Amino acid sequence: MSLIVQKFGGSSVANAERVMNVARIVTDTYKAGNEVVVVVSAQGDTTDDLIAKAQEINPKAKNREMDQLLAAGEQISISLLAMAIESLGFPVISLLGWQAGFNTNSVYGSARIKNIKPNRLQAELARHNIVVVAGFQGINRYDDLTTLGRGGSDTSAVAIAAALHADKCQIFTDVEGVYTADPRKVENARKLKEITYDEMLELATLGAQVLNNRSVEMAKKYSVELEVLSSLNPIPGTIVKEVAKMEKMLIRGVTKDKDVALVSVLGVKDNPGVAFNIFSKLSQKNINVDIILQSFGRDNTKDIVFTVSKDNGPVAVKLLEESSHLQEAKIVCDTNVAKVSIVGAGMESHPGTATKMFEALYERDINIKMISTSEIKISVIIDAEDADRAVSAVHNAFIPND
Amino acid sequence: MSLIVQKFGGSSVANAERVMNVARIVTDTYKAGNEVVVVVSAQGDTTDDLIAKAQEINPKAKNREMDQLLAAGEQISISLLAMAIESLGFPVISLLGWQAGFNTNSVYGSARIKNIKPNRLQAELARHNIVVVAGFQGINRYDDLTTLGRGGSDTSAVAIAAALHADKCQIFTDVEGVYTADPRKVENARKLKEITYDEMLELATLGAQVLNNRSVEMAKKYSVELEVLSSLNPIPGTIVKEVAKMEKMLIRGVTKDKDVALVSVLGVKDNPGVAFNIFSKLSQKNINVDIILQSFGRDNTKDIVFTVSKDNGPVAVKLLEESSHLQEAKIVCDTNVAKVSIVGAGMESHPGTATKMFEALYERDINIKMISTSEIKISVIIDAEDADRAVSAVHNAFIPND
Repeated sequence: MSLIVQKFGGSSVANAERVMNVARIVTDTYKAGNEVVVVVSAQGDTTDDLIAKAQEINPKAKNREMDQLLAAGEQISISLLAMAIESLGFPVISLLGWQAGFNTNSVYGSARIKNIKPNRLQAELARHNIVVVAGFQGINRYDDLTTLGRGGSDTSAVAIAAALHADKCQIFTDVEGVYTADPRKVENARKLKEITYDEMLELATLGAQVLNNRSVEMAKKYSVELEVLSSLNPIPGTIVKEVAKMEKMLIRGVTKDKDVALVSVLGVKDNPGVAFNIFSKLSQKNINVDIILQSFGRDNTKDIVFTVSKDNGPVAVKLLEESSHLQEAKIVCDTNVAKVSIVGAGMESHPGTATKMFEALYERDINIKMISTSEIKISVIIDAEDADRAVSAVHNAFIPND
Repeated sequence: MSLIVQKFGGSSVANAERVMNVARIVTDTYKAGNEVVVVVSAQGDTTDDLIAKAQEINPKAKNREMDQLLAAGEQISISLLAMAIESLGFPVISLLGWQAGFNTNSVYGSARIKNIKPNRLQAELARHNIVVVAGFQGINRYDDLTTLGRGGSDTSAVAIAAALHADKCQIFTDVEGVYTADPRKVENARKLKEITYDEMLELATLGAQVLNNRSVEMAKKYSVELEVLSSLNPIPGTIVKEVAKMEKMLIRGVTKDKDVALVSVLGVKDNPGVAFNIFSKLSQKNINVDIILQSFGRDNTKDIVFTVSKDNGPVAVKLLEESSHLQEAKIVCDTNVAKVSIVGAGMESHPGTATKMFEALYERDINIKMISTSEIKISVIIDAEDADRAVSAVHNAFIPND
């Protein structure tokens, strides 16, 4: 007998028919002799509808009341799913975040889980119940409801799997697993059987929207084995774990991220502390900088180029223009760029990886504006219009065609 | 400074505009120097919508999960109202039933309040917050959500008023107070300035749907002064309290109730225990009997006639037909009847009251099938088609025309 945590997103429970579909997946798992905890998000557009209601009344509503409001979304979906499981004749109980013991800090809207008190969860499992838990939500020390922010239900599922030492945490989505590239865009994209936490983290960060970053970090920390699979076609998906077989591939995936702005600060006087000055200003405003490139300019000046998210591009330019240290510099922002990356734990022992990537791009006449590398990934910044061609070219170069 | 509890029903908060209207009433009360606790129901059709969602998935869903589902309705309305009050610049916090300390028994779907732990309510009032509380819901000893059933939000409001020793509990509805008869049906219907708990209880029981019975009982028990008034036109309404001025009226109101079935058991053998036999059978099935009439029939038999709610009529007939003691009796059910009643604490000292009522009916040629009296009310059962004429006739006879 295994203990399995299954997580279903909002689209998987969007209407009565889909709720019944999820109920069947869950009860099949239970029938096979497993203990099952199910974590669900709010139905389809419920969260957006609730936000719209709030906006109409008070666009600047406090986060405390927003969380009180939004937590109702999962309350509806868990009770409906429990009723569906009941109707199939299985013992079941639904638990809200606080009933399931989710204690969080008090950062309303993006709270962090402090701990899970699993007493109630364990008691319900001991009664042989299938336990349906509201994802995305918890309670703080004041007994007020909190929500975990974007991707919070993935994190809830992994946290429960960690707290209960579950054998597996299955994340059901609308794709069949993690692919070497976006299968809607790249014809030869292949589903991966296995991938490491670190690779998954890089892929998630680089724009593959399969799993939330925080949930992968938590899975790695507590060694929770994850599986990404489809709720519409529940065949084996992709396993995420510490060590993964390489399947004769040098890299795991090629990703594209268009949410990039390239900010150039040109002709900065070459004084000590200039870089510090720029990046401390940005971090004070919570602007995350991704890739940084510094080069010598003319006449004892230098050029500093960096990338931020698209939204933050104009904000960063305005901040730097106001800086007294950068009066003589020319500051420009290019939002018409994209980041294409390859990810794979094996690449560090294959020195030719970067060359192979650059060659693939060169053959298609795609110009590289910036390069950034880590132990398990290589990213390039290119023109946005070249992005899809670049992904295909790089994918063809690295991923063997079946 | 007074402490005032205000309760608003679902139609009063049905959309953004109405929520803002309620926020203005509440903040006007707060601005006048009062402490304010607001109890709200779920918005407009929310509860019905949630029930429909459940029905689609599992028409026989357990009450525990239904309560988990339905409690989301008030969670939405309280947070939206709190946001509306925030937008007007006032300090406010919303509390779910369990956050407000509502402890109930475990009869899901129609739970009874066991006690209110007012610590959180008092702490929030001490912080000068307007406190918005979810009506209709509480928590049981297992930390599971419960709902109070029909009219539960009225009961929640009165319970808070009792627990906090509030100076007044205002029940806002879509009518301007308690009337001597249904103002949509009876032209001369007058709004009452004051009415006693007992009179209000009789009126509520007899079909005036202004206040829920349980809430009036609780108000009487804890001496909570109630006021019934309109959320759309918040002029002074009707005060409900222990002793009320009579305003030169012999009676407080005339009501009509069409939810009546008349069951006749004719030609029962006149043995001891026959009546006990009939009514114990009904009570075992939770069928409430209202009026009972027993008379002698022919040949050492008797006739027993009684009223139940319309739904229960056919159920009662079936039950009695199956009884071995009533094999020779003829059992018939008439659902085409109505009950018209007058209510007034003063009538016991005016022996002519009943005569005056019967005279008014006789003058309109309305036949009386049954009569039932208590210290403060007189009810008659008549043909359903005569009901509206009967109410008018009786109202004209008793209520002075302004």
